Amino acid sequence: MPEQINPTQAVEFLSAAQDVLILTHSSPDGDTLGSAYALCRALQLLGKRARVECSDPIDKKYQFLQNNILSQEFAPQTVVAVDIADPRLLGDRLSVYADKVDLSIDHHCRRNLFARQTLVEPGAAAAAEIVLRVIEGLGVPPDRDIAACVYTAIATDTGCFKYSNTTAQSHRIAAKMMEQGIDFAAINREMFETKTLSRLELERLALERLEFFFDARCALICITREMRQSSGASDADMEGITGLPRQIEGVLAGVTMRERDDGIIRISVRTRDGVDASRICAQMGGGGHKNAAGCQAEDGIESAKARIVDIIARELNAGAGSTRLQENQGAYNAGNHTN
Amino acid sequence: MPEQINPTQAVEFLSAAQDVLILTHSSPDGDTLGSAYALCRALQLLGKRARVECSDPIDKKYQFLQNNILSQEFAPQTVVAVDIADPRLLGDRLSVYADKVDLSIDHHCRRNLFARQTLVEPGAAAAAEIVLRVIEGLGVPPDRDIAACVYTAIATDTGCFKYSNTTAQSHRIAAKMMEQGIDFAAINREMFETKTLSRLELERLALERLEFFFDARCALICITREMRQSSGASDADMEGITGLPRQIEGVLAGVTMRERDDGIIRISVRTRDGVDASRICAQMGGGGHKNAAGCQAEDGIESAKARIVDIIARELNAGAGSTRLQENQGAYNAGNHTN
Repeated sequence: MPEQINPTQAVEFLSAAQDVLILTHSSPDGDTLGSAYALCRALQLLGKRARVECSDPIDKKYQFLQNNILSQEFAPQTVVAVDIADPRLLGDRLSVYADKVDLSIDHHCRRNLFARQTLVEPGAAAAAEIVLRVIEGLGVPPDRDIAACVYTAIATDTGCFKYSNTTAQSHRIAAKMMEQGIDFAAINREMFETKTLSRLELERLALERLEFFFDARCALICITREMRQSSGASDADMEGITGLPRQIEGVLAGVTMRERDDGIIRISVRTRDGVDASRICAQMGGGGHKNAAGCQAEDGIESAKARIVDIIARELNAGAGSTRLQENQGAYNAGNHTN
Repeated sequence: MPEQINPTQAVEFLSAAQDVLILTHSSPDGDTLGSAYALCRALQLLGKRARVECSDPIDKKYQFLQNNILSQEFAPQTVVAVDIADPRLLGDRLSVYADKVDLSIDHHCRRNLFARQTLVEPGAAAAAEIVLRVIEGLGVPPDRDIAACVYTAIATDTGCFKYSNTTAQSHRIAAKMMEQGIDFAAINREMFETKTLSRLELERLALERLEFFFDARCALICITREMRQSSGASDADMEGITGLPRQIEGVLAGVTMRERDDGIIRISVRTRDGVDASRICAQMGGGGHKNAAGCQAEDGIESAKARIVDIIARELNAGAGSTRLQENQGAYNAGNHTN
């Protein structure tokens, strides 16, 4: 029977645990990896055997999170998942553990209680904030390696303290981690200020074909298969590109269309100032959050573009930015895809 | 006789002060404006008359810092300068106050003690961190308006907590300011995620003509008069563009050349991993810091480009990244221009 536990119970459980396998989610990001390696190092410092696994390869910019982690082989007696809201996020290789997780530590609001025990704090900006509390509860003062993991996790999940999920607690933890002497400026340069040439080329191509609608309140970029090929952009290079059109001054609705290899068009909508992205995407069978939502289309770029632009026209004309009766509220978020 | 004072002395001075004129530096940024309006509001809350002045117009993204500031006309009895390391930074209109400043509050290392009294803390990431201490010393608990000013000042001076000047104190102050209920996410969107269309067009043109040298360890962009005209980019649109070439993965030296209307070329060099920008620029008669320096050239784009690229070749070949005898150290920083 799955149960939710508090930090003290998680500490008690891990104090008694041996041979701990720590699982991260597929397409691993800074939070799942930072949480996992911080916990792994703390357990190893306590003399326990522990290791981290992931279904997918780890991008080279995150490799430093493994500094001073000992490579340890063992048959797991305890399985812990970090930053994983649903067992499907374990990915292919780790899916065998879907019903074998003893403890899940997470910060997502909507989640599947798939583990035997779950420690969840939806207000935390990063899972690593909860992991840090557990580590301190275990009596391990965070050293420089743990601090680098926790800092990286929080920085990446908050866009370097920029986004609305950042809390006062996130900043106070960052301050404490910095006092361990981590090179936070180098971490941030690597996480936020380094772009591949392919990514830059893709941005250049996308900007060349930037389209505006409705007095430039809507901006749209379209990334075709040809553009991905000619730029050499990988999936990692696409990260964050959906934020580009909304960055333009005056734009209330920014649309990014990406043509997949199979011809399906993934559409991401980013909005501001009261324009509801999830309502826009719901009308194309998708969903998401108020300022970030997504949907798919199979009718080709031009047709899909005409449809989404038409929906946005109605949304903008309906007086977005003002509060109004949200007559179809129930229908939104239905798909809950945020691309 | 100019003297350095401590925060307690600054608080005593301001407690007794009346009719306070607060001066900001020319080309005002988030720190000078945030510091000034935070102090202005605190003084007004104490029942004093206070106002802020600047030689240059205030960009509209900073206008919200004036929220709830009362417009007050008076003949100044006290003059305070914030975030101003040298009286030349007062700009044209305020230059009349160059020898009339009673108190200067600042955080720059190298500075001219031009005021009668100076409160300086070179370790502070932003002048607003020192201003906040003075405000609290005056017995004014920071309200939401003061908090928004102080948060904006710190965020803008640290690149949203990204750069090496960020301290644990910066984060702790940010946490405290957030607890006043400011909309920090909206502030950050305005400061860091909004670009004019002219800026985007300028970036696109610059990327189109991006040049690489030495196995792509050096990248160079050149912004000509024609590019500025055709994009419609203003001076404000140029902000931060010098960081672009160094962002590219593998680039150790990023060069930005900007052709001024009078034909003079301003060259900015940004480096990483031990390559010394100030040494590179010193050889062109300029100077600056290790990772950010600048110089000028009057021999036209192609000739200047050939010269700077040649200097960078020697710097890269000399084994930058390793520690080595810095044989001409005395000559560097001579110009101290960071463009």
